[in-house]
Amino acid sequence: MPSISEKGRQMPASPIRKLVPYAEAAKKRGIHVIHLNIGQPDIKTPKVALDAVRNHKIEVLAYSMTEGSETYREKIAAYYEKKDIHVTAKDIIVTTGGSEALSFAIGTIMDAEDEIIIPEPFYANYNGFATAAGVKVVPIASSIDTNFALPPIAEFEKLITPQTKAILICNPGNPTGYLYSKEEIEQLATLVKKHDLFLIADEVYREFTYEGRQHYSILQVNGLEEHAIVVDSVSKRYSMCGARIGCIVSKNREVIQTALKFAQARLSPPTFAQIASEAALETPQDYFDDVIEEYVSRRNVLISELQQLEGVKVAVPQGAFYCVVELPVADADDFAQWLLEKFELDGSTVMVAPAAGFYATPGLGKNQIRIAYVLKKEQLVKAVHILGRALKEYNTK
Amino acid sequence: MPSISEKGRQMPASPIRKLVPYAEAAKKRGIHVIHLNIGQPDIKTPKVALDAVRNHKIEVLAYSMTEGSETYREKIAAYYEKKDIHVTAKDIIVTTGGSEALSFAIGTIMDAEDEIIIPEPFYANYNGFATAAGVKVVPIASSIDTNFALPPIAEFEKLITPQTKAILICNPGNPTGYLYSKEEIEQLATLVKKHDLFLIADEVYREFTYEGRQHYSILQVNGLEEHAIVVDSVSKRYSMCGARIGCIVSKNREVIQTALKFAQARLSPPTFAQIASEAALETPQDYFDDVIEEYVSRRNVLISELQQLEGVKVAVPQGAFYCVVELPVADADDFAQWLLEKFELDGSTVMVAPAAGFYATPGLGKNQIRIAYVLKKEQLVKAVHILGRALKEYNTK
Repeated sequence: MPSISEKGRQMPASPIRKLVPYAEAAKKRGIHVIHLNIGQPDIKTPKVALDAVRNHKIEVLAYSMTEGSETYREKIAAYYEKKDIHVTAKDIIVTTGGSEALSFAIGTIMDAEDEIIIPEPFYANYNGFATAAGVKVVPIASSIDTNFALPPIAEFEKLITPQTKAILICNPGNPTGYLYSKEEIEQLATLVKKHDLFLIADEVYREFTYEGRQHYSILQVNGLEEHAIVVDSVSKRYSMCGARIGCIVSKNREVIQTALKFAQARLSPPTFAQIASEAALETPQDYFDDVIEEYVSRRNVLISELQQLEGVKVAVPQGAFYCVVELPVADADDFAQWLLEKFELDGSTVMVAPAAGFYATPGLGKNQIRIAYVLKKEQLVKAVHILGRALKEYNTK
Repeated sequence: MPSISEKGRQMPASPIRKLVPYAEAAKKRGIHVIHLNIGQPDIKTPKVALDAVRNHKIEVLAYSMTEGSETYREKIAAYYEKKDIHVTAKDIIVTTGGSEALSFAIGTIMDAEDEIIIPEPFYANYNGFATAAGVKVVPIASSIDTNFALPPIAEFEKLITPQTKAILICNPGNPTGYLYSKEEIEQLATLVKKHDLFLIADEVYREFTYEGRQHYSILQVNGLEEHAIVVDSVSKRYSMCGARIGCIVSKNREVIQTALKFAQARLSPPTFAQIASEAALETPQDYFDDVIEEYVSRRNVLISELQQLEGVKVAVPQGAFYCVVELPVADADDFAQWLLEKFELDGSTVMVAPAAGFYATPGLGKNQIRIAYVLKKEQLVKAVHILGRALKEYNTK
């Protein structure tokens, strides 16, 4: 029997997936499982986007342009302009989700054995893309005690080697909910210029910032043009995760021209999804106002409920729709499984994502979980109530 | 300025793309360009597929399952069953186009520096996926004089090294139009079993076989279960290249479980396109009968017209909708550019794909072009007429 690749063996399985069979089994026992573990919003997709697909006039569903249709890329550039980000259609390649944008970015700037520094905890799939490319993730720990703010620049400098090619941030952060300040972004900009590195920012949660905070993009930093690569996606912005449309954006011509070669190999991004995504740009502002208001009130409810639980520490999120929570347990993995296997309160339990899967350093985050607040407030209140009772029972068992 | 990756430098640009600016310029001069260069069929997409998307009831465009929806995979398995290919839903992962299926296959079984043997000429993007993975393509030449039949097995054996992990075929072939016989497939099966290799078959043109010839899949070979990986796509079958839906199929559990980890990193295939693709499986048989009849008559017209041109040699295609043509020129690249820049006949010219881009061995195929017969017969006749006049003028200039 022929053997699979070493890389295939090293590819991380989804940190959430191993709990799925336990959730399925609980459901089969008739237990209602409240999912705090996934980032799939319950928010409706803008009607304008769904209607555009309903009204399509396609007779031959042909390849689109490799880099995405000209009109769509021009409209994306106009969207960025409104965010005070000055790019043109030629700085943009439309991708199959933010996932593909990240994969193109890594392939474009990194070879096997190269290193990328990422503040942890970080979006678990960064590990997958790095492993697929044979690239080494060098984590730098951020702490729940500072809400997962940027680690000191001096700590980054200790980790830079001749193999370091880039620093990758997620802003606002999944799973941390942390929004980097303008000053933090400028510190990173100075650092990557000093060491001639790329700075990749996953800005898919750009719209989700709270309490009047402004998102500051790496594309807004003067003088960073040749270093900055943004990974973007329509998935969360318009609650259309199933579209699989994103883009890679850079003013660095060589980066875009090289990424285009990776894009050519896969021919084109999906056509129906581009129709939906182009139309989504017409979404009225009140859609976002309503969505943000909803997330803010969900966040407020969730955080205040969690803060009432004994021994629980919460990082207050300033953006995105996740928060990392430290629990009074030794092993959140075991607790998460126990919640699904052994616990119920009036026929319900909760499924959480153990945070260890968001850290690259073994041992870190073992007592933390990630909660996605993409459910209605009543559900969140109920879920935290269940969590509180479960913690008591778990810790006295 | 930070530098891009070595891999990024090595990524091949599309062999056709460099001619695009010349085609654009010709069009700006008012010249009608007949495109023989691209595999985008003009055949209408089945109405049942387009209607399914028009009638979607989606309110939240959510992630689908990573491996594709259960119902869709079960229907794909039923489709294969009708082709006498016995697989189940769990042997299938739905991918974003055949492109992603190939990329998963390579990542799953090959590490950087591993080798894959591919009969040349081959689909140019195989080079792209191999380069992106740091994998070495080892070409084995097939010849226009045998219609690009399988090279002798002894020639394969000479190329096998400890780094060889797989043999990749495209059946029926792009760009060759060659359909491997059952005997040829069985020879390959014996070879990969003997050397413990994988056999990857790109079977996206499965339906397109002519003159009553039967396609024989590598999944039909008894005893090849652990070695066979099929790459498939809806793009050509239903003339829906823009959907970007394909699948990877293998009875080897370790292969599918490993490919699933690559799939998890990119979350899910596009939802609208899956709706279209699932509905496309209901396409009535007479759609295919009509399409095949149309391609056969296009092929017949094209071949007979080409055979009348002096000094032109044609490989008669038995499947797919491409053929490779040897021209009485020293450099088909130069000729293709000259056609767009310098030639016109009554206001028209043709764009062809120089075949050198489909060979990995430098120098091979320099006097060959690939023609895609995805245009109406009158256009094909006109195109060959133009080609004939152009060859005369080019060779006396």
